[in-house]
Amino acid sequence: MEVFNNFAFSTGSTLAMTGVMALGMKILQIVFTLFLCWVLIRLSHKLINKILEAQVQRKKLAMSERKASTLSTVAGSILKYVIYFIGLVSVLKQLGVPTESLLVIASAGSVAIGLGAQGIAGDMMEGFFILFEDHYAVGDVVTIQGITGTVESVTLRSTTLRDPMGSVHIIPNGSIGTVTNNCREFINAAVTVGIAYGESIDRAIAVLNDEMAKTTDITDILETPAVAGVVGLDDSAVTLKVVAKCKVKTALGVEAELRRRIKNRFDKEGIEIPFPQQVVHLVKEA
Amino acid sequence: MEVFNNFAFSTGSTLAMTGVMALGMKILQIVFTLFLCWVLIRLSHKLINKILEAQVQRKKLAMSERKASTLSTVAGSILKYVIYFIGLVSVLKQLGVPTESLLVIASAGSVAIGLGAQGIAGDMMEGFFILFEDHYAVGDVVTIQGITGTVESVTLRSTTLRDPMGSVHIIPNGSIGTVTNNCREFINAAVTVGIAYGESIDRAIAVLNDEMAKTTDITDILETPAVAGVVGLDDSAVTLKVVAKCKVKTALGVEAELRRRIKNRFDKEGIEIPFPQQVVHLVKEA
Amino acid sequence: MEVFNNFAFSTGSTLAMTGVMALGMKILQIVFTLFLCWVLIRLSHKLINKILEAQVQRKKLAMSERKASTLSTVAGSILKYVIYFIGLVSVLKQLGVPTESLLVIASAGSVAIGLGAQGIAGDMMEGFFILFEDHYAVGDVVTIQGITGTVESVTLRSTTLRDPMGSVHIIPNGSIGTVTNNCREFINAAVTVGIAYGESIDRAIAVLNDEMAKTTDITDILETPAVAGVVGLDDSAVTLKVVAKCKVKTALGVEAELRRRIKNRFDKEGIEIPFPQQVVHLVKEA
Amino acid sequence: MEVFNNFAFSTGSTLAMTGVMALGMKILQIVFTLFLCWVLIRLSHKLINKILEAQVQRKKLAMSERKASTLSTVAGSILKYVIYFIGLVSVLKQLGVPTESLLVIASAGSVAIGLGAQGIAGDMMEGFFILFEDHYAVGDVVTIQGITGTVESVTLRSTTLRDPMGSVHIIPNGSIGTVTNNCREFINAAVTVGIAYGESIDRAIAVLNDEMAKTTDITDILETPAVAGVVGLDDSAVTLKVVAKCKVKTALGVEAELRRRIKNRFDKEGIEIPFPQQVVHLVKEA
Amino acid sequence: MEVFNNFAFSTGSTLAMTGVMALGMKILQIVFTLFLCWVLIRLSHKLINKILEAQVQRKKLAMSERKASTLSTVAGSILKYVIYFIGLVSVLKQLGVPTESLLVIASAGSVAIGLGAQGIAGDMMEGFFILFEDHYAVGDVVTIQGITGTVESVTLRSTTLRDPMGSVHIIPNGSIGTVTNNCREFINAAVTVGIAYGESIDRAIAVLNDEMAKTTDITDILETPAVAGVVGLDDSAVTLKVVAKCKVKTALGVEAELRRRIKNRFDKEGIEIPFPQQVVHLVKEA
Amino acid sequence: MEVFNNFAFSTGSTLAMTGVMALGMKILQIVFTLFLCWVLIRLSHKLINKILEAQVQRKKLAMSERKASTLSTVAGSILKYVIYFIGLVSVLKQLGVPTESLLVIASAGSVAIGLGAQGIAGDMMEGFFILFEDHYAVGDVVTIQGITGTVESVTLRSTTLRDPMGSVHIIPNGSIGTVTNNCREFINAAVTVGIAYGESIDRAIAVLNDEMAKTTDITDILETPAVAGVVGLDDSAVTLKVVAKCKVKTALGVEAELRRRIKNRFDKEGIEIPFPQQVVHLVKEA
Amino acid sequence: MEVFNNFAFSTGSTLAMTGVMALGMKILQIVFTLFLCWVLIRLSHKLINKILEAQVQRKKLAMSERKASTLSTVAGSILKYVIYFIGLVSVLKQLGVPTESLLVIASAGSVAIGLGAQGIAGDMMEGFFILFEDHYAVGDVVTIQGITGTVESVTLRSTTLRDPMGSVHIIPNGSIGTVTNNCREFINAAVTVGIAYGESIDRAIAVLNDEMAKTTDITDILETPAVAGVVGLDDSAVTLKVVAKCKVKTALGVEAELRRRIKNRFDKEGIEIPFPQQVVHLVKEA
Repeated sequence: MEVFNNFAFSTGSTLAMTGVMALGMKILQIVFTLFLCWVLIRLSHKLINKILEAQVQRKKLAMSERKASTLSTVAGSILKYVIYFIGLVSVLKQLGVPTESLLVIASAGSVAIGLGAQGIAGDMMEGFFILFEDHYAVGDVVTIQGITGTVESVTLRSTTLRDPMGSVHIIPNGSIGTVTNNCREFINAAVTVGIAYGESIDRAIAVLNDEMAKTTDITDILETPAVAGVVGLDDSAVTLKVVAKCKVKTALGVEAELRRRIKNRFDKEGIEIPFPQQVVHLVKEA
Repeated sequence: MEVFNNFAFSTGSTLAMTGVMALGMKILQIVFTLFLCWVLIRLSHKLINKILEAQVQRKKLAMSERKASTLSTVAGSILKYVIYFIGLVSVLKQLGVPTESLLVIASAGSVAIGLGAQGIAGDMMEGFFILFEDHYAVGDVVTIQGITGTVESVTLRSTTLRDPMGSVHIIPNGSIGTVTNNCREFINAAVTVGIAYGESIDRAIAVLNDEMAKTTDITDILETPAVAGVVGLDDSAVTLKVVAKCKVKTALGVEAELRRRIKNRFDKEGIEIPFPQQVVHLVKEA
Repeated sequence: MEVFNNFAFSTGSTLAMTGVMALGMKILQIVFTLFLCWVLIRLSHKLINKILEAQVQRKKLAMSERKASTLSTVAGSILKYVIYFIGLVSVLKQLGVPTESLLVIASAGSVAIGLGAQGIAGDMMEGFFILFEDHYAVGDVVTIQGITGTVESVTLRSTTLRDPMGSVHIIPNGSIGTVTNNCREFINAAVTVGIAYGESIDRAIAVLNDEMAKTTDITDILETPAVAGVVGLDDSAVTLKVVAKCKVKTALGVEAELRRRIKNRFDKEGIEIPFPQQVVHLVKEA
Repeated sequence: MEVFNNFAFSTGSTLAMTGVMALGMKILQIVFTLFLCWVLIRLSHKLINKILEAQVQRKKLAMSERKASTLSTVAGSILKYVIYFIGLVSVLKQLGVPTESLLVIASAGSVAIGLGAQGIAGDMMEGFFILFEDHYAVGDVVTIQGITGTVESVTLRSTTLRDPMGSVHIIPNGSIGTVTNNCREFINAAVTVGIAYGESIDRAIAVLNDEMAKTTDITDILETPAVAGVVGLDDSAVTLKVVAKCKVKTALGVEAELRRRIKNRFDKEGIEIPFPQQVVHLVKEA
Repeated sequence: MEVFNNFAFSTGSTLAMTGVMALGMKILQIVFTLFLCWVLIRLSHKLINKILEAQVQRKKLAMSERKASTLSTVAGSILKYVIYFIGLVSVLKQLGVPTESLLVIASAGSVAIGLGAQGIAGDMMEGFFILFEDHYAVGDVVTIQGITGTVESVTLRSTTLRDPMGSVHIIPNGSIGTVTNNCREFINAAVTVGIAYGESIDRAIAVLNDEMAKTTDITDILETPAVAGVVGLDDSAVTLKVVAKCKVKTALGVEAELRRRIKNRFDKEGIEIPFPQQVVHLVKEA
Repeated sequence: MEVFNNFAFSTGSTLAMTGVMALGMKILQIVFTLFLCWVLIRLSHKLINKILEAQVQRKKLAMSERKASTLSTVAGSILKYVIYFIGLVSVLKQLGVPTESLLVIASAGSVAIGLGAQGIAGDMMEGFFILFEDHYAVGDVVTIQGITGTVESVTLRSTTLRDPMGSVHIIPNGSIGTVTNNCREFINAAVTVGIAYGESIDRAIAVLNDEMAKTTDITDILETPAVAGVVGLDDSAVTLKVVAKCKVKTALGVEAELRRRIKNRFDKEGIEIPFPQQVVHLVKEA
Repeated sequence: MEVFNNFAFSTGSTLAMTGVMALGMKILQIVFTLFLCWVLIRLSHKLINKILEAQVQRKKLAMSERKASTLSTVAGSILKYVIYFIGLVSVLKQLGVPTESLLVIASAGSVAIGLGAQGIAGDMMEGFFILFEDHYAVGDVVTIQGITGTVESVTLRSTTLRDPMGSVHIIPNGSIGTVTNNCREFINAAVTVGIAYGESIDRAIAVLNDEMAKTTDITDILETPAVAGVVGLDDSAVTLKVVAKCKVKTALGVEAELRRRIKNRFDKEGIEIPFPQQVVHLVKEA
């Protein structure tokens, strides 16, 4: 509050004139500062609109008119508040107010905005790495955060998947974490099938191997499927597993076809796929 | 505490007069500062009310009178505390108190408010991107955080959904993360149905295909539905799946109708949809 | 530690007198500072009590005497520590101690308090938005964090719900996140009922439609309820669903009544609501 | 490292004497600083002990001797390190070392302590609000973080509950979040009971209503309990629900009594509470 | 890079001699600084070892020789890096390098260490409160983070529990949160037992009450156990509950004994504890 | 806004000429600054392209042309905004605007970017330790975040796994946490098998031991497998366990083979692997 | 941009010569600065390689050549960027650019690195405490984050466990939290066994006690195992429990042996271990 110091000084001295003149000078400066702010806001608004109009016409940035108008409104009002804030600090400084106290308060907003925007910033950095390191490309079938779908688009900020049900998922890049890409060279189809405890395991494996040898007519299969063996001695069945190396994006179809063939073959061979089993010890009462 | 330094200095010198005058000057300044704060608070209150009244009348901002009054109260009291804080720092500085120590303490509040407000700031930035990148629009059926509903409104801060039960969900934009939009061009309806292990898979698929070919009378279906094949050799049934590409928002209705038709057709064809099966090995005791 | 510099300087010079006098001066200043702190604490305590007493009497703030006394104790002791801290820094500075090192240590407390208070600050900002954007009002039935109840009160800091069991839940506004408001214009009542696989779906739907047409006597229902169709071909039953648009807060009652009527009607019509079904393949053993 | 500058200057000049004297001066100052630190630590220890002894005797703060001794040890050693740190920075500054580098390092500790203490700070602020806003009081039955018990004490830092099994839970206030208070005016007792699908719903409801009308002898019930109707058409039973408004803390006892009476009445009336039901389709095999 | 400024200045003037001398001076200073760092590291290492040796011998701190050696190595190398860092900044400053840029980089490390150490700092503050507020003591049976065991030791940093299986759990104090102490005055033993739907509830309760009256021979029980009534009308049984107030640490033993007595008494009284019940509707098929 | 101060000063003096000249000078400087920025951006763009082209040609960095182009675009536009920002601050400073206020606002962006980038920074540090401490290498079978697969590549930022189904998982190093490496010297294969309660445990163990002794023909087994004993007295079976030490990556195959052999041997020996057992107490009703 | 100020000044004066000379001087300085940076990078690279080579040869640090080369590359490129950054700031400062704006931008990177590195810093501090407080040692069987295994190594940064299946888990120390050490003096083996409701509890306990008394031949058991009593009146069985105090690492083996002995003894004594029980109320239909 140097202004009072000046005022005090002038009353303490005989040259009050000087003090009055200095005060007048200050008021003039403040009015001028405020006027300048107003001019700057007007100019910047015009400038933003000019730039965005040019962008829309040049068609290079591919920004629709609706987007340009949204951006213009937001950028304009952000700029307005920044200019007002700088103007306010200037005026207070000219009045001799200790502006540190204001800056401490202002930094609260700064921290809030910085923290609030960290998500956006993180999204974009992740987006850069996804594009730069080729994690996936449009058309790939990927699994992100438990959602499996075909990539429809990748931008710096988000990835868009279309899942098999037709729903479209928009995933912020910053929350992606682990990516599962199911479209790298090949994919495996796996079918597990249970056989009755009474059946011979060795015969069932032989039958499966024979059936698998006949899958050469399925063009999506890259190698003759292999029997992975006995994967479980379960409650009601001995479980066997067959794995087939396929072309990408064909695993679900191949699995459906293999299930159909195995079921038909087992029916023909008389190998039982058992229902749940239970031994009941019957005690009759009243 | 320069004031004491001054005081000390003056007692140490013979010019005590100067010290007394300086002290009087300081007290005058402080009183003047406090008076100025009071005037500023009064003025700012009036200004806020003026602006908000104008807003309500202009009807441009579409702010109800109740909202304006809430905002006026809050903005007024925030301004009051800011002005008091700056005034206090000014006074302390004039007294020669080292204001850094006060600012360190004040920054605690600053950090708290900044961190507390980060949620609001993040909400608004997310809101901007939702609007700017067209993630969804009013009327879309979307799934956010596990809640599926029709978008009733989107603001910078929150999105409002109405779920099928009529409940209204207000979701802060900052917590949205992944968005699932079910209204992009088309949506799939899927029905799974189990058939008895004793049935012929090939015949069941043929019957389903035939039934699906008759769905041309359902105008919500865009393409003749396809049989996706054997999706499981389950405990008690062989499970088949049918997928139909539909117009958006019609999937649930199409699924209900397809289930009805498949059940009726299977009844007519004598294809069994089995109950849970169990093999019981009976051992009689006592 | 300028005090020693001064001391050193004075011993190095012949004017030791000046050094001694400066030291005496400093001690006088420090004593005076401490006395001032004591006076300030006394005054501020009295001031706080005065203000709070006035508040209690004016009845405007609606603050009970007990609350006023709690607030007075807390505000008083916070002020005491702030004044002591500023006084201490002043004294150390007068002694020439580098106070930056103290401020660095003090900022630890500052950070702790700022971070600790962020929850409170966030609560209040959320509270402001809940009130300002009308998320819910007293009397609404809402679901927050999985708790469904009637809003009993909303303050800047917390929302109070009374659940149907009579328990009162006090929820900090900052942890609310997504709000579900069940009191916006209407709410739906939904009843699902299973029918035996042996029944005709078409007849069951016709019967349900007929029964629903008779619900005009239930004044809480806004529109004749609709049958949503076959929602599942489940293990033991074909599941049908009925949805009724109701007045807010009446859904539970309507559902109970609809269940009663459907059960009675099905009994009359001879439509079976099946028990869980199981096919047992009996194998006799020893 | 101004000390070297000085040294350099002195060798560059002919007045080496001055440099040597300055160096001697500095060493004297440092020794004096260290001595002062030692004196201060001694004094502060004595002061802490004095204050705590007074507290213990005055009985006002209600601090046991054991607590006072713990506090004295901790406060003493914190003070010791603070004084040593300030002393060290003073000495380094006198030697001309750039202390900013030391302060940057020291701020690591500051950040660690600030972050580490945020939990304590948050606990106390929450505690203040719990007391100030009357969330609960000693003797209330509350549910916090899934633990239900009677409040045994509330302090600024933690809340102590005794659960029905006699275990005592000490919960930091900062982690409380949503509080459920079961002691506000009344609490509801609810009993659900299933009746066989073969029974008449209307008769069962009538019987329940009649039984509930006889509960006037249970003084803990505030209003004649109401039958909430058919809450489920479940697998094996039609489920009915009865709700009774009770005095606080009596719900469990009322529920036990209502269950006893309903069971006895249903037995008398011959209304079946069914066991789990299952329809078995028997297929005989080998 | 003031050194170059100096250099530039000297070439621009005729007094190149001065520049050369200044340069030489600076090099001398730097060498001296580095030498001083080396000396300081040596000295500090010796000092640390001396102090720790003294500690080990004095036996007061109860620090084993192995611990002292670990601490000496770590403290020594931390000190080494701090001294090198300060020395480096001094040298760079003497060379006129803008050290702010270095300090900004260094603060990265500072932040990392501060954040990394917050866990330790938080542990110790929690530890202080656990000791100061007597949350539990050595020998108590407590439940922390789902682990129930006997407290073997409590330090500022961690709490050690021995669970009933003999495993020792070391829990950092900062992650403790809610503490459940099962050793405060008393603990309850609770036994639930189901009786057949066909039994008389009233008789079963009478029998239980009679049996409980005979538990006076169990010295761990503080009061005659009470029957809490009908806690559930469950699928296959009516569930009753008995609660007994016991001495701390005896609940498990009392529960085992009560179960044994109730089972024996029910056997004698002919009250059935039922197996799971099921009603089977038998339909014979092919 | 010193520019106004200057302006004010000049009007207050008679030497208005000087003021005008100073103003002209300033405008010249600003224009020159902006021109310089433009030149710098041009130059830096050219430089970036040169460096990247060189990199592509040298083939040392192994950077594909597509990657280089992405990097060039991103680096170019980052540099552009940095230069503009510095230029802006320079201009404002020349105009006498208090740039602290701008820097406070700018630091919001700084904080956002810093926080947003912390994930990337953390990824790279983790990556360094994975490589430096040899946590795993290309070809190892590891389990990270619940995903088991063969390591296809490790970079500073991410680890790529191919799982047994052929899906490729790209895992950011910073989110790895605990790593399970299944390729260190050996891996165990374990088979559990249940035997009927009626069988002799001792005989079953003897048979298993005998069968295990015959596994010397399986070259993947490193030691004769051991019977771990009775691991459970379960509901329907006594469960035994066999453990075999194998070569890395062979456990699944060995387990499948052991299961096949044990099943065949038990069949031959007549040892029953039981189905789920249940004792039924039959009560006949109407 | 003081350079322009200088330039402006010189044109405003008649001594343009001086301005040109100053400019030339500055360019010279900048070139010299850049040259110095290049020299420093070269030197530091050589120094790093020297030190690491020495380390490898001395064999003291036990660093393999591959590790040394990794470290050399990383340390070298970090140093390169630090030197370039300081050089750049120096050059900009010489040009009169306000370097605060650059430092604000640079601090974004600083924050990112600091936050990114906090995990590493926290790991090391935890590691120090694990070693210093002896939480576990190589060879102990511990449970960390749900993984049970034998400790293979402990470093400042991570702990390596080998689980019973042979998989090696590398766990960052910072994420360890609660540690369960199963190797402190003793460990308990516990076996629970169910007996039929028809059996006498007292006789079963007596038999168990007798059998336990015969376990003196199992050298891993430290004390005669005790029967803990009736731990449950479960659905189908009365559950008893036996606890045996064992030598560390032997619990699993002891439990397997106890199960075998109890089963054999119960067989001999004719005490039934029951299968799941169910009472079926049979209703015959069509």
